[in-house]
Amino acid sequence: MIACCVFDAYGTLFDVHSAASKFQSILGNHYSSVSALWRQKQLEYTWLRSLMGRYVPFDQITADSLEYSLQVFGFQDQSIKQRLLDAYKTLDCFQDVPSCLSQLKANGIHTAILSNGTLGSLKTLVDSANIADWFDQLISVSQVQIYKPHPSVYDLVIQKFGVPKENVAFVSSNSWDAIGAANFGFRVFWLNRNEKNVADVLPGEYSTISNLSQLSANILGG
Amino acid sequence: MIACCVFDAYGTLFDVHSAASKFQSILGNHYSSVSALWRQKQLEYTWLRSLMGRYVPFDQITADSLEYSLQVFGFQDQSIKQRLLDAYKTLDCFQDVPSCLSQLKANGIHTAILSNGTLGSLKTLVDSANIADWFDQLISVSQVQIYKPHPSVYDLVIQKFGVPKENVAFVSSNSWDAIGAANFGFRVFWLNRNEKNVADVLPGEYSTISNLSQLSANILGG
Repeated sequence: MIACCVFDAYGTLFDVHSAASKFQSILGNHYSSVSALWRQKQLEYTWLRSLMGRYVPFDQITADSLEYSLQVFGFQDQSIKQRLLDAYKTLDCFQDVPSCLSQLKANGIHTAILSNGTLGSLKTLVDSANIADWFDQLISVSQVQIYKPHPSVYDLVIQKFGVPKENVAFVSSNSWDAIGAANFGFRVFWLNRNEKNVADVLPGEYSTISNLSQLSANILGG
Repeated sequence: MIACCVFDAYGTLFDVHSAASKFQSILGNHYSSVSALWRQKQLEYTWLRSLMGRYVPFDQITADSLEYSLQVFGFQDQSIKQRLLDAYKTLDCFQDVPSCLSQLKANGIHTAILSNGTLGSLKTLVDSANIADWFDQLISVSQVQIYKPHPSVYDLVIQKFGVPKENVAFVSSNSWDAIGAANFGFRVFWLNRNEKNVADVLPGEYSTISNLSQLSANILGG
């Protein structure tokens, strides 16, 4: 029996590439490469800082990784950096999110976001996407000052909801995050939208879904 | 006063892309992309496994990350995987390595490799490149079962040589490794060969060199 369903935010509920895609006129043909490297470095910096014990909030990491990506692609104008960071605060929400959340809530399932992002950024994201009311909790790694997939991050869910691990469903489009949550002990769904991605070759048991309608069907047994 | 000089192995002394470059006839135009993704995932898996507390030896990670990369590029033949892994055991050594090592040794500087690699793989690498005799120590993370840039990895150097951190020179072509060593307290040289790479936007003080001749000049004050 699933008591609560926990979602990753960046990449899972919100399209991390929607920021750069709004600036194609400035970034030109490079826009998707800038965005991909920005995202790659953003994650790398969370892992590297966690291992070095040099935590800074995710907003800083997002700015640092964008700085790196813009340097690689030769964009020196600092104004584009600020405009991209502003756009990152109101990322597009994926279309299948609201109906999935409403189904879960209608069936008495508790819902939460568990994210690397700061609480302030998470609030701005859910507000701008008009999905704030569907969540019982917004949970940020800032409370433990270390990033996913460290187990203490996933343990925040247990602390908030007080339910056994096996009664928690966790959903992430990030394969490594799904695997981190599986290693912690959650019942995990890897959201591989459009079956586009290859699963990371890391140990962990999880189910794969290709959209969020499949999630509610799985959890609610529909 | 530098008492010992410690080198990263993969990417610094040995060209990690020399394995895939030998199989251009099989991998086709994709060979450099296969190699780049292999390397990227190899590093990601060291960080992710370290954070999850799921250490396996680097040889396993090298195989897993290659598996991922070959899947992404649609190579399903398992024989190419084994041939690439075999080639990875005898990576090409960069040309400026032997003369740098001989200069350091001639001046009484102790030398070591500190690597994510297993001791067995490190031995095979230095033997096949004929540079084994130049090293006083080969040091593997396998002793602490966690990967760079965790501080306990860099601390292995102190345990082996018994010298203060500030008397240790550390050289890596991997910007994040240089930064990890700088955070630990070594005097660090980031080897940015041909000034091709952009420095990671992470905190840490280090000098930048573009070849290993500049290293001996810096350390020996030549």
